[in-house]
Amino acid sequence: MGDYAFDADTSVSPSGRDEFSATLTDRWNGMTSVVNGGLEMAICLRALGLGMPFPDPLVVSGLFLRPGTPGSATVRTSLLRSGRTTAFGEASLSRDGKEIVRVTAAFADLGAGAAGAVAGPVFVGGGPPGLPPPSECARLPVAAFGPATIAERIEFRPAELPGWVRGEPGGRPSMDFWMRFADGRDADLLAMPLLVDCTAPSVMELGALSATIELTVHLRARPAPGWLACRASTRFVVGGYHEEDFEIWDSSGALVAQSRQLALVVT
Amino acid sequence: MGDYAFDADTSVSPSGRDEFSATLTDRWNGMTSVVNGGLEMAICLRALGLGMPFPDPLVVSGLFLRPGTPGSATVRTSLLRSGRTTAFGEASLSRDGKEIVRVTAAFADLGAGAAGAVAGPVFVGGGPPGLPPPSECARLPVAAFGPATIAERIEFRPAELPGWVRGEPGGRPSMDFWMRFADGRDADLLAMPLLVDCTAPSVMELGALSATIELTVHLRARPAPGWLACRASTRFVVGGYHEEDFEIWDSSGALVAQSRQLALVVT
Repeated sequence: MGDYAFDADTSVSPSGRDEFSATLTDRWNGMTSVVNGGLEMAICLRALGLGMPFPDPLVVSGLFLRPGTPGSATVRTSLLRSGRTTAFGEASLSRDGKEIVRVTAAFADLGAGAAGAVAGPVFVGGGPPGLPPPSECARLPVAAFGPATIAERIEFRPAELPGWVRGEPGGRPSMDFWMRFADGRDADLLAMPLLVDCTAPSVMELGALSATIELTVHLRARPAPGWLACRASTRFVVGGYHEEDFEIWDSSGALVAQSRQLALVVT
Repeated sequence: MGDYAFDADTSVSPSGRDEFSATLTDRWNGMTSVVNGGLEMAICLRALGLGMPFPDPLVVSGLFLRPGTPGSATVRTSLLRSGRTTAFGEASLSRDGKEIVRVTAAFADLGAGAAGAVAGPVFVGGGPPGLPPPSECARLPVAAFGPATIAERIEFRPAELPGWVRGEPGGRPSMDFWMRFADGRDADLLAMPLLVDCTAPSVMELGALSATIELTVHLRARPAPGWLACRASTRFVVGGYHEEDFEIWDSSGALVAQSRQLALVVT
């Protein structure tokens, strides 16, 4: 596991009853010096998963109480309820004794499907974004992302370069693109909270930055290996707040994650 | 406050330090005998709000651990963090010593807007559903909702009757409609968790019912008085799970709430 950057940077070690030690790193930072919130959620989810009776995260929500800084951190977990097909838990990530992120999550077995799923209806009211193959998409030089260290660890290939890269925000806060870990690690469900929060925020096309207040991720299927087709979009920027929706589709054309965050517009 | 059903049924009384007593009622039930989950979240939000330094809920997430039954309940709250413009809290609703719902929330002042909002960008990438005036929309007899007591307390006016009412699910799990409290109470932000979870689930148009696992609501503006224009839609029903998105627009044309839930398909 430790051979890949994501696994190394989300590893947790038991340090007490329902308590784990972790290390927050600046290797996945966005445009600011704050530790990536999706990475913090992934650390919490990894610790939570160790005590869950089901293998897959199904939904996870995070409240971002304080900005995280690199260094030693502690995750405390609790199992809130274990049912027949779903289990619920909570995790709290702290640094220097101060809580940074509060996470709640449900786990299930997405291989088995939900109870009664075999007989249930199926409806697919959308598909992956229509993108040229990754080899024909735009490649952004890592330097285009300025201070964002995450650009060294996640490959990002949109059909066309976003306007903000050229210093000309395009005014339309949405984008389709391919994504994958740069070191060849295939994505899994544990990586989804990071992946849905790892690209330049849609509001950069409005000339702004973003600070996440809350992020909820639905996990809908275990991803197949390979490139992930992604769609990020913001529809409402009002009164200093905005939402960002994110979809991740795997190489088999299945929706694997759907997320929404509420964030402060930072100008 | 007690003159209106919603206020009476979400009232909480202090019963200890950070502890409140509440009563769960079956007056807002949907198609099953389970207490409405949105009502349970509204009760938690009301209790949380009593200890918050800001007046408005900004985002609230609920994990539904167990089905609620009518009767006496307890809400325990904690203030997780109070910042300059945002405060965070958690609430837990229990009945007979068992936790039913775990809620996390952020509060802010939506009257003041977020810090720096005055200079920030505004983008509105969507509008309210195009509906005929409420007086020209379909009115469903309360009996059409079968066991759903909520139909006595919330008026629901779609442009056309949904197929499931005629016993002919239409196959398209989305709907636009007007909504308001039947007793004349105007909606406020505290009511939003109930209102986004109070109509027949979109999957009824696929011949199924729904059991919510997680619900997150973004509160975007204090609602103006009057009818609310609503849009409910489900895009992905796969493996026994589905999401449902919900938007509520007020009579001035402003988006006031945007929600998404992850739910089990019940057949």
